[in-house]
Amino acid sequence: MEMLVIELDKKEEIPLYEQIYEQIRIDITEGKLPIGMKLPSKRKLGEFLAVSQTTIEQAYAQLLAEGFISSIPRKGFYVQAIEELAYVEPTYQPSKSSLTKEKCVTIDFSPGDIDMDSFPFALWRKYAKEVIDESSKSLLLLGDPHGDLEIRREIARYLYHSRGVDCTPEQIIIGSGTEQLMPLVIRLLGEHATYAIEDPGYPLTHHVFFHNDRQAIPIKVDEEGIDVQALQQAEANVVYVTPSHQFPTGTVLSAARRTALLNWASSHEDHFIIEDDYDSEFRYAGRPIPALQGMDKGDNVIYLSTFSKSLMPSLRIAYMVLPQVLLKRYREAFIHYSSTVPRLDQHILAGFMADGHFSRHLNKMRKTYRRKLHTLTEALLPYAPRVSFSGEEAGMHIIVTVHTTLSEEKLSQKATEAGIRIYGLNKYRTSPVDQEPSFLIGFGGLSTETIKTAIEKLMAVWSIKKECRQSRT
Amino acid sequence: MEMLVIELDKKEEIPLYEQIYEQIRIDITEGKLPIGMKLPSKRKLGEFLAVSQTTIEQAYAQLLAEGFISSIPRKGFYVQAIEELAYVEPTYQPSKSSLTKEKCVTIDFSPGDIDMDSFPFALWRKYAKEVIDESSKSLLLLGDPHGDLEIRREIARYLYHSRGVDCTPEQIIIGSGTEQLMPLVIRLLGEHATYAIEDPGYPLTHHVFFHNDRQAIPIKVDEEGIDVQALQQAEANVVYVTPSHQFPTGTVLSAARRTALLNWASSHEDHFIIEDDYDSEFRYAGRPIPALQGMDKGDNVIYLSTFSKSLMPSLRIAYMVLPQVLLKRYREAFIHYSSTVPRLDQHILAGFMADGHFSRHLNKMRKTYRRKLHTLTEALLPYAPRVSFSGEEAGMHIIVTVHTTLSEEKLSQKATEAGIRIYGLNKYRTSPVDQEPSFLIGFGGLSTETIKTAIEKLMAVWSIKKECRQSRT
Repeated sequence: MEMLVIELDKKEEIPLYEQIYEQIRIDITEGKLPIGMKLPSKRKLGEFLAVSQTTIEQAYAQLLAEGFISSIPRKGFYVQAIEELAYVEPTYQPSKSSLTKEKCVTIDFSPGDIDMDSFPFALWRKYAKEVIDESSKSLLLLGDPHGDLEIRREIARYLYHSRGVDCTPEQIIIGSGTEQLMPLVIRLLGEHATYAIEDPGYPLTHHVFFHNDRQAIPIKVDEEGIDVQALQQAEANVVYVTPSHQFPTGTVLSAARRTALLNWASSHEDHFIIEDDYDSEFRYAGRPIPALQGMDKGDNVIYLSTFSKSLMPSLRIAYMVLPQVLLKRYREAFIHYSSTVPRLDQHILAGFMADGHFSRHLNKMRKTYRRKLHTLTEALLPYAPRVSFSGEEAGMHIIVTVHTTLSEEKLSQKATEAGIRIYGLNKYRTSPVDQEPSFLIGFGGLSTETIKTAIEKLMAVWSIKKECRQSRT
Repeated sequence: MEMLVIELDKKEEIPLYEQIYEQIRIDITEGKLPIGMKLPSKRKLGEFLAVSQTTIEQAYAQLLAEGFISSIPRKGFYVQAIEELAYVEPTYQPSKSSLTKEKCVTIDFSPGDIDMDSFPFALWRKYAKEVIDESSKSLLLLGDPHGDLEIRREIARYLYHSRGVDCTPEQIIIGSGTEQLMPLVIRLLGEHATYAIEDPGYPLTHHVFFHNDRQAIPIKVDEEGIDVQALQQAEANVVYVTPSHQFPTGTVLSAARRTALLNWASSHEDHFIIEDDYDSEFRYAGRPIPALQGMDKGDNVIYLSTFSKSLMPSLRIAYMVLPQVLLKRYREAFIHYSSTVPRLDQHILAGFMADGHFSRHLNKMRKTYRRKLHTLTEALLPYAPRVSFSGEEAGMHIIVTVHTTLSEEKLSQKATEAGIRIYGLNKYRTSPVDQEPSFLIGFGGLSTETIKTAIEKLMAVWSIKKECRQSRT
């Protein structure tokens, strides 16, 4: 039995086999048992330690599985060569929140927040209850990598009726958000694609291009939307745009520019438009403006949208509509990729849409947001002409411009000091420009009461006083 | 009123303002109204058409919003320059399923399927009901981009106790799956990283490297796992491994190799191990084998795992544990990225784990899968020595090797013709090797009855007869 010393504590809670395993393992790692040494047979060691042979078998099996010993059939067990390595003692300590939100922020004019009081919890719970059921147990397994047909069918129907988007459910790919879908688009368009982006624009998309080592040429946005003439002169073959409600300026792309943009795309075979229609559901005047995708003759528009604004940001269901030419490429490239959207959620949403609740919810929310927008603009009007605003035709934020000698940065800072978070327009530009200070003012997540008091507080902080009341033309 | 001709049908269902809008829009796009032409004032046109001024205002507002006309304050509305473009008529037709599953498959030995009969639907529904509630409405908004603290805390606790993984919740990033997390890791490790992968290995990861334009050097896997000596000679600084249960061979990385691998990683500052611990919960003999991450002194292991096997593939919740050195880089790089995992699902899972249901579920499933595995190996034993198997220590699939003159492809084909889907090992290699035909036989999704009859059917198809019954040593 030479060097093999094992002490067992039969009163201890640790199973005997584990005590044996542990001591042999330590002896091996510490080099006390020489490489190639034959271990005693199960029977012998069992007798020696006065434990059952099964106990020894369990210990040896574990050592074997972890590769500390090897087994030669009908001969026995041998110590394997192990390089020295100290096991690290775990140092886990349940720690405090990593969410170190600035505590002083009392009002957040975030353009990404939604109205939380109007979400139909009871209905959503009903569909969840129906879906999370024994009877739909096959939903536990992976579904269609593009997203289940049920939800894609509902989205195609909705897009056709509400956005003029012309597509079949087959063209729709469900994903977890722009962060997740855009890299797939970038792969599809190949390594030689050069991108144009709106400036100012959506920072997330710009980061996605950067992280995927793609060049992204900034194109100026003016009061008609992206400058298509500048695009024509740029060396880009793909453009990322937000035509229905430009982010962040809130501009609606003019009809002339729309046509010019589509013509730019159809002029070359490898030209594509990525149309991000992120908050088009919320338009407060007249009919919704149809998506570029529906006007497209040339199969050149990749249409992107999301349920983040229309239902909830945390749902993480977005989708894209691929032109036929890219659909084939997509199928070939991403055959191994599963849908990133939980299937139960896909079916909760599909049921909710199929029964007409989504349209009803949108109609309700449109009224809610229109009321909030009205409150916001009414609260701002008394401060004209020192304060003006734009981008109020759609969406959940407007742009407020302050006519003052103070800088955007200085105004931001004053607001922050007063516990009000606002979002300076320069932050959304590739490089800051010397213009009048402008801010994104999101109103989705604030109550009408808060909007009123918050604007008053903000103006007070900026020392802007009410002028004689006038209505806006 | 010159060229402006508008015909109104007051009995039609289409609102009057929309009829007016539509006709002017068509006249503009067709060039019937010259660019720069001044439109009649709202009052004049209202009188002329015998409709209210508000109706005209609505029509003009829509034309204005879409950029067909422009407005000059106190002067009027003017026709804008529009390039010619034919509107495409939508051709949407609700179509049939894109899921063209091969109908003839009656038995699928997929290694990715799980047991659907044991999922605790009632419990899951209970937590869903609790989470989808007015009282937790703040969950509608975006949460921590790394995943909410509640779920990360539960995962850290679980990993420490069950996998020997030493981490704080701060090191954990929640994601939607390997497809989604790996590209982030690739960004983190920079453009000069060169990767080594197991051969045979997990095809999804290989595709992710390919799609992200990263070189991936295949390293041979033998009966002890990945060949670390070959890795040392390869020009790679990051290796992707599945040490607890190599995919697809089922090998457990030997202790000697574990140590050698960790030493390889700590020998250079830029060396990293990506440890994918995808199905380590299911080990059927002895104690679970601790993760490499817990043995790592040098902060060089990126640990990846998922709830796909332990709960359901369609849940789409995976996670990674980043070493401190990469955590800082991650925070800086992906500040704009939101978590791709729906927040309600994060909290359903966190509640389920916190109350101990996850551990209980794992214990139950371990028994279930052990029973299925036992049925499978018992069904195979009578066909020895013509059929042998390996990789049965853990997970939800084993490797079955057929000692025959027929090729892997031929055997696959025969199985498919009989409605049985099996997965040839060569499919998981970077290039097929001339070896005895081997197959991944997944047993998670099949009932014990099906396993028995399916193996009998498969052997019959292959014309392999039972030898005299013998037990396996």
